[in-house]
Amino acid sequence: MARRSDAKQKMVQAARQLIRERGYNATAFSDVLELSGAPRGSVYFHFPGGKTQLAMEAAEAHAHEQVTIIDRAADQANSAAQLVELYVDLGREGMVDSNYGRGCGVAPLVTEGAAAESADVGETTRRAFSEMTDRLAFHFAAFGVDRTAARELAHAVIAGVQGAMVTSRALHSPAPYDAVRAVLVSRAVSVSPKTSSRKGT
Amino acid sequence: MARRSDAKQKMVQAARQLIRERGYNATAFSDVLELSGAPRGSVYFHFPGGKTQLAMEAAEAHAHEQVTIIDRAADQANSAAQLVELYVDLGREGMVDSNYGRGCGVAPLVTEGAAAESADVGETTRRAFSEMTDRLAFHFAAFGVDRTAARELAHAVIAGVQGAMVTSRALHSPAPYDAVRAVLVSRAVSVSPKTSSRKGT
Repeated sequence: MARRSDAKQKMVQAARQLIRERGYNATAFSDVLELSGAPRGSVYFHFPGGKTQLAMEAAEAHAHEQVTIIDRAADQANSAAQLVELYVDLGREGMVDSNYGRGCGVAPLVTEGAAAESADVGETTRRAFSEMTDRLAFHFAAFGVDRTAARELAHAVIAGVQGAMVTSRALHSPAPYDAVRAVLVSRAVSVSPKTSSRKGT
Repeated sequence: MARRSDAKQKMVQAARQLIRERGYNATAFSDVLELSGAPRGSVYFHFPGGKTQLAMEAAEAHAHEQVTIIDRAADQANSAAQLVELYVDLGREGMVDSNYGRGCGVAPLVTEGAAAESADVGETTRRAFSEMTDRLAFHFAAFGVDRTAARELAHAVIAGVQGAMVTSRALHSPAPYDAVRAVLVSRAVSVSPKTSSRKGT
């Protein structure tokens, strides 16, 4: 059981990596098996729903990682503006480190029509972006931003990072991240209380 | 010749529409022929470079349309902030009108790895986003924004709209557009001269 579960996790992570690099349709089960080293026989045991299920689990894993990254950044930050800085910079770093080769693990399911074709995939992508947005909004509110402004800022951060991921990759330049960061940080400052602090820190 | 050229244009527009709806890999020549009503024999006459060439021409057509939209919005605007409002609202309108079914005509070539696999496709997508960004930056500067801030704002607008296109589609909500608009407009105001005007208008 332990080994099986391990193989499953490796396949989900391999699928996530390939989806980030080449999208959903170009990611074949055979590529996922090769990258993960999982035995062919395990495919339909772990993913009776086929490639769709594998992709949904990869999208969920991606969203989960993003939420974890947001939580960790919020722990290090002392203000909404600092959280924005840390989160955008982590995205920028990942993009440069991958030599502009890696995008989002959820977006391809949307842009390649899979989310429109399957209600389950559609719900998975909706939930993935909702979770990231909700989490950012929660932390912004905890830093003293009022709820409406926190939600708006969260939507703008997620959209800004998503867009920078595409244009930065196309341009082979971090300029979109830097631009998005400057605009979002200035907004975060303007919607934050004058002396922002949280939990007594 | 006129008919042939017409068939070619129809195929490019059909390819662009399908790429916006379902991405690059899921767009087959047969779908493009069906949607455009072009004769099968015309495929390799008009596109000797195959699907890659068709997709590059579709991406170029998309960028060209965006530049036209930016120019038209700039004509109607009296300030950088108004240009941002008009441009983001047009994107929002298109998204809602398509019932969250249509994204960018260039981005799928990036996210599905085609731009990384082919230097020609890579150059096409780089140029497409450069053209849109340059055009916005040009108009922002014409409205009195200093060149560095104009360029930064342009990158942020293109990234913000790109990202809103993905998350709005996933969430089936215009909220990301509204958030991106608010953040970008406030930035446009803050980097604009106190009384902005152009060409005496």
